[in-house]
Amino acid sequence: MSMGKAVPPGGTIGILGGGQLGRMLALAAARLGLKTRVYCDNPDSPAFQVCEAHTVGKFEDLAAVTAFAAHCDAVTFEFENVPAATVAHIAQTKAVYPGAHALEMTQDRFDEKSFVQSLGLTTPRFGAVDSGAEARRLFAEYNSRAVLKTRRFGYDGKGQAKPKSADEAAAAFASFKGVPCIMEAFIDFDFEASVIAARGRDGSFAAYDPPENHHENHILARSVVPGRLTREQGAAAKEIARRIATALDYVGVFAVELFVLKDGSLLVNEIAPRVHNSGHWTLEACAVSQFEQHIRAVAGWPLGDPARHADAVMENIIGADALAWERYAARPGALHLYGKAEARAGRKMGHFTEVSPLTRD
Amino acid sequence: MSMGKAVPPGGTIGILGGGQLGRMLALAAARLGLKTRVYCDNPDSPAFQVCEAHTVGKFEDLAAVTAFAAHCDAVTFEFENVPAATVAHIAQTKAVYPGAHALEMTQDRFDEKSFVQSLGLTTPRFGAVDSGAEARRLFAEYNSRAVLKTRRFGYDGKGQAKPKSADEAAAAFASFKGVPCIMEAFIDFDFEASVIAARGRDGSFAAYDPPENHHENHILARSVVPGRLTREQGAAAKEIARRIATALDYVGVFAVELFVLKDGSLLVNEIAPRVHNSGHWTLEACAVSQFEQHIRAVAGWPLGDPARHADAVMENIIGADALAWERYAARPGALHLYGKAEARAGRKMGHFTEVSPLTRD
Repeated sequence: MSMGKAVPPGGTIGILGGGQLGRMLALAAARLGLKTRVYCDNPDSPAFQVCEAHTVGKFEDLAAVTAFAAHCDAVTFEFENVPAATVAHIAQTKAVYPGAHALEMTQDRFDEKSFVQSLGLTTPRFGAVDSGAEARRLFAEYNSRAVLKTRRFGYDGKGQAKPKSADEAAAAFASFKGVPCIMEAFIDFDFEASVIAARGRDGSFAAYDPPENHHENHILARSVVPGRLTREQGAAAKEIARRIATALDYVGVFAVELFVLKDGSLLVNEIAPRVHNSGHWTLEACAVSQFEQHIRAVAGWPLGDPARHADAVMENIIGADALAWERYAARPGALHLYGKAEARAGRKMGHFTEVSPLTRD
Repeated sequence: MSMGKAVPPGGTIGILGGGQLGRMLALAAARLGLKTRVYCDNPDSPAFQVCEAHTVGKFEDLAAVTAFAAHCDAVTFEFENVPAATVAHIAQTKAVYPGAHALEMTQDRFDEKSFVQSLGLTTPRFGAVDSGAEARRLFAEYNSRAVLKTRRFGYDGKGQAKPKSADEAAAAFASFKGVPCIMEAFIDFDFEASVIAARGRDGSFAAYDPPENHHENHILARSVVPGRLTREQGAAAKEIARRIATALDYVGVFAVELFVLKDGSLLVNEIAPRVHNSGHWTLEACAVSQFEQHIRAVAGWPLGDPARHADAVMENIIGADALAWERYAARPGALHLYGKAEARAGRKMGHFTEVSPLTRD
């Protein structure tokens, strides 16, 4: 589909995926007077509660997806594991952003890192692993300090192993049942950060101030803005995002996860072709949140001003933490709960953002 | 119904009225993981697009309203002209906030002003008008500078007349077909302001910083915070709200419209027993907006912190202004459109809030 005209107020945005990101995208679309439809394979999807209509179906069911898209003026997705073939199929009849190319590129850790390096940006050392022998060889090459990951379908630490020996590296590869893997050298980073940015249909670009991020058990625990990044590092992070977005001809919001080294340099860890957990603080601290920004890009609207008018600390509410909702509700700040019935261990149930007046831009 | 337990996440809030206020209440409830059902007589209600279920029905249809309430854990309303008898009827079987008493009190301009004066607060001079002769007499008593209003069912300048003579005052009364009226003396105010506050089920109280308001054609055009109120006037405005809420045993968000006189004193103009147009800026400038605050009160949650973390200027988008949505979308700030298909003259279609870092609290 060509760029086409903007989706006007009253138009409908289709969202593939009905989790909390889809839910917050739907709420953001509603602010702009846009309607949403949500497609998901889970009949209890949190996003179903806040959209005008929804479809339960498999993401591989091209007939169902096509019927769904027919009711929409533009289509997007909330998670990177929607099949690129499904997105490419929708693109034959409907505007869909981000495009299948960007999605495909970020669905494979090896391809993604190779692409990042091709832009002259730095990543941790990495290598493809397609055999136990390669796992052993790279583990040794990276001084026994490396992580083995499946190339595809990993998130929040799933599909990852931290071998302690070459034998364990080979065993980890075997445990992934022979799917293509990648070995990544450990990085002695000072701290983690990310940059959330957007590119419009017209090529315009906007980046939020990069937060400092803290993970626990491979899951984001806290994002702080302003964090420890200097103004110069913030500008460098935004420039990294701009180069990636331009090279991918990207449309929509995306995140670049970064390692900040002790020497001050920034390494690219991962690209997420979607709104991102480390950008949830934009709901309070910016006039246009990452969710609205994504909807604006997908709908062909002007990007919103990413300026931050407040400081923020976002923390995730995970698993059984959500049972203490009354304690969160009593704290000064913004509580967000995702409408999930069951507080399973490791499940993202909500988040809480402390907001305070701006100290520095 | 007794105070009872809080409505937990996953519970359902029923909203009577499906306009933009109901829509923004539903969106705020969704942030907290609460579901919403909306009841309205208009099948094209903007709030229907963002709630889990809706009912089209008359507000006087007690059977339909009862069936609706049966699906809800607590019920509220978005506008003050819902029949108090309907609210009282729901209260027999379900928690409903604010209560019928507060609603009834604010549905009649004469009763409301009498109540405000009974608290030792000041209003403009006023008197009941039940005949053309009374209209003439009060018009003369107020030095020919007065406005005649119907006691009930007025908003945005509807049901109001500004007579230029005693004859016109009598004619205006006649034009209202003999319904009970009120004559209010004009006030030479310096500017208008309002205070948006909330009272919880437990009697807790929270007030937002009072904005300065500007009206055009009897409709709010712009709210500015911080406005021209001094810190002392702000505190006095919040104290006025506290006294009114306590006396009404109020639960929920309400607004008190104020006149600020040249001598610095505050006069109470009107009470609105609901979220209020002059509080829309809280969506961006506070961690907990007036809409979420109302949902918290109705659901029996702790009230949120009303602290303001940014400055804000809110302007309404009225009637054909909404056709220029692309111009608003390109401006730095937060655009809200209400999902109304037809941009009729005088119709509130959306609002736009400029947000900037806090200059003073």
